[in-house]
Amino acid sequence: MSPSIPRPTVPTVLPPEYGPPLTAAQAARMMKAAEDVANAEGWPMVIAIVDSSGSLLMLHRHDQAQRASVDVAIAKATTAVNFRRETRVFQELVAGGGLGLRLLGMPHMTPLEGGMPILLEGKVVGAIGVSGMHSTQDEYVAKHGLAAIGALQA
Amino acid sequence: MSPSIPRPTVPTVLPPEYGPPLTAAQAARMMKAAEDVANAEGWPMVIAIVDSSGSLLMLHRHDQAQRASVDVAIAKATTAVNFRRETRVFQELVAGGGLGLRLLGMPHMTPLEGGMPILLEGKVVGAIGVSGMHSTQDEYVAKHGLAAIGALQA
Amino acid sequence: MSPSIPRPTVPTVLPPEYGPPLTAAQAARMMKAAEDVANAEGWPMVIAIVDSSGSLLMLHRHDQAQRASVDVAIAKATTAVNFRRETRVFQELVAGGGLGLRLLGMPHMTPLEGGMPILLEGKVVGAIGVSGMHSTQDEYVAKHGLAAIGALQA
Amino acid sequence: MSPSIPRPTVPTVLPPEYGPPLTAAQAARMMKAAEDVANAEGWPMVIAIVDSSGSLLMLHRHDQAQRASVDVAIAKATTAVNFRRETRVFQELVAGGGLGLRLLGMPHMTPLEGGMPILLEGKVVGAIGVSGMHSTQDEYVAKHGLAAIGALQA
Repeated sequence: MSPSIPRPTVPTVLPPEYGPPLTAAQAARMMKAAEDVANAEGWPMVIAIVDSSGSLLMLHRHDQAQRASVDVAIAKATTAVNFRRETRVFQELVAGGGLGLRLLGMPHMTPLEGGMPILLEGKVVGAIGVSGMHSTQDEYVAKHGLAAIGALQA
Repeated sequence: MSPSIPRPTVPTVLPPEYGPPLTAAQAARMMKAAEDVANAEGWPMVIAIVDSSGSLLMLHRHDQAQRASVDVAIAKATTAVNFRRETRVFQELVAGGGLGLRLLGMPHMTPLEGGMPILLEGKVVGAIGVSGMHSTQDEYVAKHGLAAIGALQA
Repeated sequence: MSPSIPRPTVPTVLPPEYGPPLTAAQAARMMKAAEDVANAEGWPMVIAIVDSSGSLLMLHRHDQAQRASVDVAIAKATTAVNFRRETRVFQELVAGGGLGLRLLGMPHMTPLEGGMPILLEGKVVGAIGVSGMHSTQDEYVAKHGLAAIGALQA
Repeated sequence: MSPSIPRPTVPTVLPPEYGPPLTAAQAARMMKAAEDVANAEGWPMVIAIVDSSGSLLMLHRHDQAQRASVDVAIAKATTAVNFRRETRVFQELVAGGGLGLRLLGMPHMTPLEGGMPILLEGKVVGAIGVSGMHSTQDEYVAKHGLAAIGALQA
């Protein structure tokens, strides 16, 4: 560490580690719970689930869900797992303006509420992304998916 | 028709027309039948179903399916619906060499057995693409998906 | 399994399963061994190592290595891990003509010798891809990388 | 110069010229210094170094670095060398709003602190991009890379 290079004063915040991949059985339980709430509400949606490698594990598109939501749901899920953060965090930073606006230039980062990493035993095992309705409704559905496998954070 | 322009002599063959999109309920029945046979065989696979617009409707990846099969299954399904033909047809044309080789330069065309259009009442309503095992096994699984909704052609 | 759908007769061949990701320390040992042999031969090369998620872990390009080899080395490595096979296998199938030619239409598959999956305890933990010289020289260098962590198959 | 066309009044600022490419040996020295400080801090990162042609020369990803940082580190480095400027400059222009926002529409430009051109004898010989922690920490690590070859600007 060169004394001539001023050390930044921001605190070090380490994100959760990556864990083993979500299983297909876990994804199916998440998907059912998420679809149940979407169907109960009458919301046509696309729900995508990726594993800890960022690879697509399961995707369901409902009748009359907007077609663009296929890519959006996958993008929310991959953003959540590759950055190990809820996509809502990025949305809020962008909405705050100023420095947050730079995030719009981040490659492969979709700053739209509705993508959530899946944490089991403190490790990122995958992510869920939901698209099709208002983003707060998207996240509401995503949370039901997390709850179905005990992965909803307090 | 100008008499100075020689008319091609190949017979006119019109492919089936596009119909309304496959429903999510139909896709779920196809997916279950395809997964049942894959599971009975112990084959880890990726099964993708698209509707008549070519948009992804449902995708399931099994534990330990090779990761590349996500893109391959989607590519087989979209090839089958966008060209309204089984992907095996293109595979055979390529294998035949000569003029068939030009198909390798066709954009967004994947000449690998295992993609099949879904025809209901004579119209293309979607397609199924399967990847993960030998391509004859992929197609075998795809056919069970078609059979589940009465779309297996004789 | 519908009795009206003929079952394929090819034997079921399951590839090795995916395991945990290769570590940065293992990648460094592989890289050093691969570079040592390349330097001893005087071969300017690009050596890429990906982990079991398919994500780039380490890449070194030598002075005067051809620039295109950056993409080629990464493509060989990702093909090897995503298909869990040596890229030479695909090269030979393509070279055999006939049905093998269809592989040229496989998305994200680079059929060029020099990409090898990394197996530890029977599981795929990553892959190495080498480019820059004749493909047999590329694979020769890749094998030295595997040997450095005891992953060279008999 | 037509007198009917008003001449812009902004001062002419020519960026530094491109020089010969950074060598692999220089990149290795930079990488070691950057990794040493990252390891001392306990920061999992991705460090990418490109040469004056913009082509990737060296990339190291640490265990548990966020996967998205592979693309982000490369993007920061290529932005720094292709625009011959520190990426922090673009970040500040975007943060300032107004005209600066147009930069978000610039192709292949990533306005995120942590990408720095490498200048030797006044010429751009490459760039380093760091990602994985707070952007001020990313740049702090990048500066240690520059210092290792005497390229840190006063």
